[in-house]
Amino acid sequence: MATIKDIAEKLGISVSTVSKGLNGASDISEALRQSVLDTAVELGYTTKQMRSRSQKKLCIFVENMEYETAEQFGYDIILGFRQRAYRDNYDVTVVPVTPDLQSEEKYDTYMLKNGYVGGLLLGFALQDPWMEQFGSTGIPTVLLDNYIRKNPAVSYIGTDNFEGIDDAIEHLVGLGHRCIGLINGSRHSMISEQRRQAYIDSMTAHGLFFNEDMMPYAYFVPEAASPHVEHLLSIGATAILCGNDLIASGVISECERLGVRIPEDLSVIGFDDLPLSAGLTPPLTTVRQDRCELGKCGFYALHSLISQVSVSRTLLRPRLIVRASTGPVRQDTLG
Amino acid sequence: MATIKDIAEKLGISVSTVSKGLNGASDISEALRQSVLDTAVELGYTTKQMRSRSQKKLCIFVENMEYETAEQFGYDIILGFRQRAYRDNYDVTVVPVTPDLQSEEKYDTYMLKNGYVGGLLLGFALQDPWMEQFGSTGIPTVLLDNYIRKNPAVSYIGTDNFEGIDDAIEHLVGLGHRCIGLINGSRHSMISEQRRQAYIDSMTAHGLFFNEDMMPYAYFVPEAASPHVEHLLSIGATAILCGNDLIASGVISECERLGVRIPEDLSVIGFDDLPLSAGLTPPLTTVRQDRCELGKCGFYALHSLISQVSVSRTLLRPRLIVRASTGPVRQDTLG
Repeated sequence: MATIKDIAEKLGISVSTVSKGLNGASDISEALRQSVLDTAVELGYTTKQMRSRSQKKLCIFVENMEYETAEQFGYDIILGFRQRAYRDNYDVTVVPVTPDLQSEEKYDTYMLKNGYVGGLLLGFALQDPWMEQFGSTGIPTVLLDNYIRKNPAVSYIGTDNFEGIDDAIEHLVGLGHRCIGLINGSRHSMISEQRRQAYIDSMTAHGLFFNEDMMPYAYFVPEAASPHVEHLLSIGATAILCGNDLIASGVISECERLGVRIPEDLSVIGFDDLPLSAGLTPPLTTVRQDRCELGKCGFYALHSLISQVSVSRTLLRPRLIVRASTGPVRQDTLG
Repeated sequence: MATIKDIAEKLGISVSTVSKGLNGASDISEALRQSVLDTAVELGYTTKQMRSRSQKKLCIFVENMEYETAEQFGYDIILGFRQRAYRDNYDVTVVPVTPDLQSEEKYDTYMLKNGYVGGLLLGFALQDPWMEQFGSTGIPTVLLDNYIRKNPAVSYIGTDNFEGIDDAIEHLVGLGHRCIGLINGSRHSMISEQRRQAYIDSMTAHGLFFNEDMMPYAYFVPEAASPHVEHLLSIGATAILCGNDLIASGVISECERLGVRIPEDLSVIGFDDLPLSAGLTPPLTTVRQDRCELGKCGFYALHSLISQVSVSRTLLRPRLIVRASTGPVRQDTLG
């Protein structure tokens, strides 16, 4: 378990200042005190006082998403959520779930039995057993990347996929690319559907040709890329958008195997800006999702629902991070 | 100006308790202290301490919207915003604007000159001079009912018009209505466009006939209704949706003049749930927008932008409030 010293080191302040922050002393600033508490939450440091004060319990359910280490997609979302929840005296439990668990027990039953007053759900797919129950649950529930119609107890948070994909295509068009493919994430996922539609909208708006062949579905893992890379290259793609950074890393590996140079022969763009992206060879151009802020917005939405304020959706803007995996189109590919 | 006694009366507590709340005494609860402060903001009561503590200035610009009294649309939005802003030590100024003022001075110039760190804009139309400047402003800016593409400094708040219109049409369909008209608000307004599209989507989804004639644009005032009522009746409409409650009140007046009974001959639905709606004859069925919460969400979005968190949009759910202006369709109108 983390100690007071770990917090002090992480923040570059003295142990006694950390103590003051944890104990609510009046001679340190509110902002510093908040940093101390945020860092305590991040490092998993708890005092007896911190443990005893929590009355209200929230649950984060995670499916199809890695979150254990800072390199993984869910980590910062959960961290941002917990930091905000802590400020409002909530206790947060993280529960990995499977379709089986969902089939065994109804969502409402699970929540009531465990005394959770609200839930944040990460990584759920459209066909997950609990999904149809969210249409009528009365328990305050926030879904990342899933929208439930008309239920005032449920809220959607996410990143604006339409702007993200359009930013990426605009960047490629500016580099002279005309034949752009999309290796999408999994089917049965709302964000895959949104990014597919965003691709169609943006390609259309830029007057570029596309067809079904150019926008295959895959999965959100590196291995899913390889079957599609050769095909996209064979039909003349000079750039590939990917459903996430993991797929993009798979595209890069496959290109290495095929002797295709990035970005000279092919430009590649990811989605998410995971920590691994900057370390790839070449470093990956990608659409950043601010995951820590997504977690904070998730808490804000859940807290609103608990307070009977029906926030329907909260979207963050994406940000295109340009690195070395994109470059000008090869002159010999221009017809 | 309001006195301490006004606050005490409004809350039903003693003057000394109000004093304690205003002075931050430790022997009253945080929740009660917050109610005292919220009410002080609502009634315009300020102490020297309250006036001197504010450092950061925000501006609410209002155009095409009434907000001076509690009966008017903008009042609660501004109140909710100011209550939240006050908690975070912001000073809020309300400035009515005209297209002329916008033409005279650029938005950024106005903000910088007056030392405002953020703006909330209410009632702006698509053709307003400042609107195109919002595409590139770097000043944190939140717009009610207007969406600006891709500028990370700008955020959109509003109510989900698609769910609101669909709720209304679903309600009418449940009462047997098949021929439903829409007297929309002004052209050149994003919400008029959204509600028009929502009407088209929902009528289509319910398999109902509609054409251009059945969804005229008007203005957001009672007088705008009358030219359209007789025409909609003549083409067989048994129900009319309205772009807001003021238009709906105009439909009711016009029906009275024409001897058309509501809801026996015609069902009428408004939008907003202004205080006047419940007092109309008959009381108006309408789609409620929670304006106080819209104001609070507006502050949250603006505060996020000021903190470099780019919230793109925040939507609240609407709620259909069923009163006496809607009823079963007349049997003789069913083919």
